[in-house]
Amino acid sequence: MKALEDRILKEGVVLPGQVLKVGSFLNQKVDTSLMMLMGQEAARVFAQDGVTKVLTVEASGIPLAFATANAMGVPLVIAKKHKSANVSGEVLKAPVYSYTHKQTYEIVVSKDYIDSDDVVLIADDFLATGNALMGLTDIVHQQGARVAGAAIAIEKGFQKGGDTLREKGMKVLSMAIVDEMTDDGRIAFRKQ
Amino acid sequence: MKALEDRILKEGVVLPGQVLKVGSFLNQKVDTSLMMLMGQEAARVFAQDGVTKVLTVEASGIPLAFATANAMGVPLVIAKKHKSANVSGEVLKAPVYSYTHKQTYEIVVSKDYIDSDDVVLIADDFLATGNALMGLTDIVHQQGARVAGAAIAIEKGFQKGGDTLREKGMKVLSMAIVDEMTDDGRIAFRKQ
Repeated sequence: MKALEDRILKEGVVLPGQVLKVGSFLNQKVDTSLMMLMGQEAARVFAQDGVTKVLTVEASGIPLAFATANAMGVPLVIAKKHKSANVSGEVLKAPVYSYTHKQTYEIVVSKDYIDSDDVVLIADDFLATGNALMGLTDIVHQQGARVAGAAIAIEKGFQKGGDTLREKGMKVLSMAIVDEMTDDGRIAFRKQ
Repeated sequence: MKALEDRILKEGVVLPGQVLKVGSFLNQKVDTSLMMLMGQEAARVFAQDGVTKVLTVEASGIPLAFATANAMGVPLVIAKKHKSANVSGEVLKAPVYSYTHKQTYEIVVSKDYIDSDDVVLIADDFLATGNALMGLTDIVHQQGARVAGAAIAIEKGFQKGGDTLREKGMKVLSMAIVDEMTDDGRIAFRKQ
């Protein structure tokens, strides 16, 4: 999506360790108009997939997931992130290892909010190793529901999580795929 | 706002300890259409206040804050919540005690995302004691910026945080104010 790639080139900052900082428009300060456009793009690409819910995990995936759910006219479900497994009630949960925080989180959704006949579109701001996406997929499957695919703002193509999931048959829409970042700040996008 | 009050009466569950569970439409499963209506209501009420940014703290305040920022055509800024003060870089921060989690969190915003000439509308899903709102106000003031007021989905009127802030001169819009909840599930709203 050109509007997102242009914004990444204009405001994105490459930090050491292959970190792409896009806090000025994507996840700390958020341009909600750009986000709504991205939600509409996700709605267009998944229009024929019978999506009944959009699922994300708190916190930085919420803006894109909100915009996508709104564009599709379906409810948004937000998984919570816990450092411990101390969760009461009837919940679906899966462990997710975060390379950013070097820590395993438990992601948790109440069973009340995903039904066995749901077709779930997973949305998130970043896709790198794919760990969060796999944890969310696991949660959907625990309930006997189906995953329509994933709508992602920025995929780090060089970390291969997205390609691995595509090879497994998942429909993954990434609005921008960064195939290369250099420490001098150059960013190369995959042609889509 | 009648649409919200009706939804609370229909789906809200009163739990022991004055807890109001509204996860089926407000913060775990989210009705984004209702949220967009609430954002438009906030935009209407604060239309003459020169708001330049909407500020919230992750995670459950994000949907209303997103909808409000989108309706007002201004950026959304999301404060992060940390259990420790281990934050690098140039940040604004304030401690917030959470009665729900019986713990003090540090809320943190990068200095890059609030400017001294900003007029900031704070948005959140719940207002009870007002601690989060006061922490966010503190952060805005640290940067020399001004707070236009607060847009809240549900205020627990019986906890007096909202009334105290109004007495101090803050413009507080709560879309629904619950003045009484009984353990048998009865909910009484304040007439506004």
